[in-house]
Amino acid sequence: MTNTVGITNLVQWARLLEQQQEKELLALLCDAPIIEVAEFLNQQPSQKLLTLFTHLPQELQGAIFADLEEEQQRNLYELLPRKDFATIFSHIPSHQRAEFYQQLGHNEQIRLLPYLYKKDREDVMTLSAYAPGTAGSIMSTDFATVIENMKVKEAIQKLREDSPSKKMIYYIYVVDQNMQMTGFVSLKDLIMAAPDVQVAHALHENFIYANINDDRESVARQIEKYDLVAIPVLNEEKQLMGIVRYDDAMDVIREEETEDMEKFMGIVSNEDTSDYLRSSSLQHFRKRVTWIVGLFIASIVSELIIHKHEALLGRLTVLALYLPMIAGAGGNAGSQAATVVIRALSLSQVTLRNWLEVVFKEAQVAFLLAFCLFFLAFLKVIILSGNVVLENHGPYRLAFAIALSLSLQVITSTVVGASLPLIAKYFNGDPAVAASPAITTLVDITGMAIYFAIAMAMLY
Amino acid sequence: MTNTVGITNLVQWARLLEQQQEKELLALLCDAPIIEVAEFLNQQPSQKLLTLFTHLPQELQGAIFADLEEEQQRNLYELLPRKDFATIFSHIPSHQRAEFYQQLGHNEQIRLLPYLYKKDREDVMTLSAYAPGTAGSIMSTDFATVIENMKVKEAIQKLREDSPSKKMIYYIYVVDQNMQMTGFVSLKDLIMAAPDVQVAHALHENFIYANINDDRESVARQIEKYDLVAIPVLNEEKQLMGIVRYDDAMDVIREEETEDMEKFMGIVSNEDTSDYLRSSSLQHFRKRVTWIVGLFIASIVSELIIHKHEALLGRLTVLALYLPMIAGAGGNAGSQAATVVIRALSLSQVTLRNWLEVVFKEAQVAFLLAFCLFFLAFLKVIILSGNVVLENHGPYRLAFAIALSLSLQVITSTVVGASLPLIAKYFNGDPAVAASPAITTLVDITGMAIYFAIAMAMLY
Repeated sequence: MTNTVGITNLVQWARLLEQQQEKELLALLCDAPIIEVAEFLNQQPSQKLLTLFTHLPQELQGAIFADLEEEQQRNLYELLPRKDFATIFSHIPSHQRAEFYQQLGHNEQIRLLPYLYKKDREDVMTLSAYAPGTAGSIMSTDFATVIENMKVKEAIQKLREDSPSKKMIYYIYVVDQNMQMTGFVSLKDLIMAAPDVQVAHALHENFIYANINDDRESVARQIEKYDLVAIPVLNEEKQLMGIVRYDDAMDVIREEETEDMEKFMGIVSNEDTSDYLRSSSLQHFRKRVTWIVGLFIASIVSELIIHKHEALLGRLTVLALYLPMIAGAGGNAGSQAATVVIRALSLSQVTLRNWLEVVFKEAQVAFLLAFCLFFLAFLKVIILSGNVVLENHGPYRLAFAIALSLSLQVITSTVVGASLPLIAKYFNGDPAVAASPAITTLVDITGMAIYFAIAMAMLY
Repeated sequence: MTNTVGITNLVQWARLLEQQQEKELLALLCDAPIIEVAEFLNQQPSQKLLTLFTHLPQELQGAIFADLEEEQQRNLYELLPRKDFATIFSHIPSHQRAEFYQQLGHNEQIRLLPYLYKKDREDVMTLSAYAPGTAGSIMSTDFATVIENMKVKEAIQKLREDSPSKKMIYYIYVVDQNMQMTGFVSLKDLIMAAPDVQVAHALHENFIYANINDDRESVARQIEKYDLVAIPVLNEEKQLMGIVRYDDAMDVIREEETEDMEKFMGIVSNEDTSDYLRSSSLQHFRKRVTWIVGLFIASIVSELIIHKHEALLGRLTVLALYLPMIAGAGGNAGSQAATVVIRALSLSQVTLRNWLEVVFKEAQVAFLLAFCLFFLAFLKVIILSGNVVLENHGPYRLAFAIALSLSLQVITSTVVGASLPLIAKYFNGDPAVAASPAITTLVDITGMAIYFAIAMAMLY
């Protein structure tokens, strides 16, 4: 019985392995959750991995293999005779099998193919053909079908015969002789129905489905919205090609959220670096350098504005003191607004039709923030620069000018930050491209423009 | 058949409603996905809502009610006689029922209780007793149980009798006479097993469970890790108290990700404002003002550093020009590093034991970034300020000093940004509290210190 999972088992298993009690260890592994066995095997050197893995029952090997890290999968693949591997391959869940197959190079694929069972070969080649990011690329062919005019008891009998190899039999798909989907029944429906009625009797003819080329994120969202255990995936001829399960949808949601968060911080997402420690520093560098350098170059605009006013800065050095404050507060307010709007868009709380409402609400929030900051900024300037003597004006005028600049900057930045994700969405882009560093750099420009315009008008 | 869902149906339904073809409309509603019916009803005024809702079949009313917006739920609750409501209440899934009950004020709860069926009353009061954020607060009591020494066919018969009211019968929990859980069988196991063997034969005695006081996020993670459809929730006596389903886990993951992202942008998460448009500007303001004002005050430290060097700035105005650049690049690099580390921690790719590895890797990335920026900054200064005459040195020395400051700042900021989430985690805090605005403000301080130290040493 595992509750606080992982650690205790792994430690206990490692001890057994050290004491060479491999028989006891294997007995424990057979009863443990697949993912924990995989985590344990991930930590073993190649030879130990091979010995333990080959001694596990064949029906578990496929599932465990699927949960191993890529590196260990490769190790096993290279250590096992291809013929033995073909048997294991046959037991790997179809979705992960296609993924592994794609990671083998082209040459290795060709070398492996002759050893595979005909059914597996066809399955893996079909699944590998779909474009990454589509429903087809994350679907599994591990589903159960029955024919509409079967009796309930015949359908149950068919499931009994088919299902040792099927993981997912909670929904059973009803197809005609062309594999066109006409509906589904749940396993619960079958259990509840009288054994002698026809399956058609319990059939759900209204069903949610995904198209094979749909974006995988939208498929995951459908599963989430309709609380499905799995969604059927149909091709253009409405033939049932596969299913996407809720657990794969969860993975997609996690990945997309990571991508959103990275994009928002100006990090270029790519699959190579999906695992932090496994990616090299150079890979991490490549993900980040584009934005860092791009923004550095873009910041030249705000520098030109400052440059243009160097004469003013020379006569009124005190203005330099508050430059970073104006830039900083604008960046923070703008990024906050963008975060809130991106999130609301991504959770479908807001659509483009609400844009005016969103901008208006953000403007209100910005006014309240600006109001607070005005007084704080005024106070700060009096404290830090109360002794500054201007040519024609007292320190209160200076404080007022700076506080006013800051307030205007916070309002502008908030509205810009809220608008950018909406604009990106309008042009069919991902709202998260309105990244925080980009917003910061953009509002730096407005900030400098506001600051110097007010300074020129009020203090020169 | 719904594929690209929602819009078409809603439009068609609205048209039928306008044309007063309510009979046709109701026929369509009965066949449509629950969530879409709820979305349609959400848009109706109170009286229309009441008419349509009460004409829907009773067995659907509970599920539809659960998916309505809070406001519409309240409307229905107020329009319906309490006795009728009690019948609907009985059909609402237990988890959402408890949620609705908790949202009624104390007085209203007391007024409703006498009308409820005894079973519902006990259920709702038990579920409402668990602390928010725990497994107990998100669990459902809608599960199926059988006794170990039943035969498989008896178990199936019991399911047939019980399950019209049970949504989740894919796992069937096996309990003893004290409701202590001894294992589970899947519905698939029962279908596959010979009808005359004992349930004990197909029993999984190793199972994953959650404790009733476990954090809901960790429960969601367990469901995700072990690919469960539902996880049983046990109390201290190992009695089965409820289950948490995968779809509720998905909701939890979404909410926690929103919280992480908001926290990272210095937004105080709270449940009041979980819906963007429904929250007032004042509520949004309150979520954001703490950090904006806090950071504004904290930024006084970096301003004091600039203040201290105002004499230098006065003599070397050109230094003011590059102040925002130093601050900006540091903020960007630090926030990126923090994002990457927070994400890796949240996906369990990194643990505290790896801290040295993480910091080392980030330092490497930072060196590469600093190397690129050094040359760019050098170039920028030559272009923008190549004509600046220093007292003792040429423009190359100025460019070198500024580029060096920038490089050091990027390295420091990246290491600070990567370390803060690890430090927060070490003190059992949420890594996401190492928020981007906080990092920006912190590295402003190091940035100003580095900048002026180098300027004093090389240019004075």
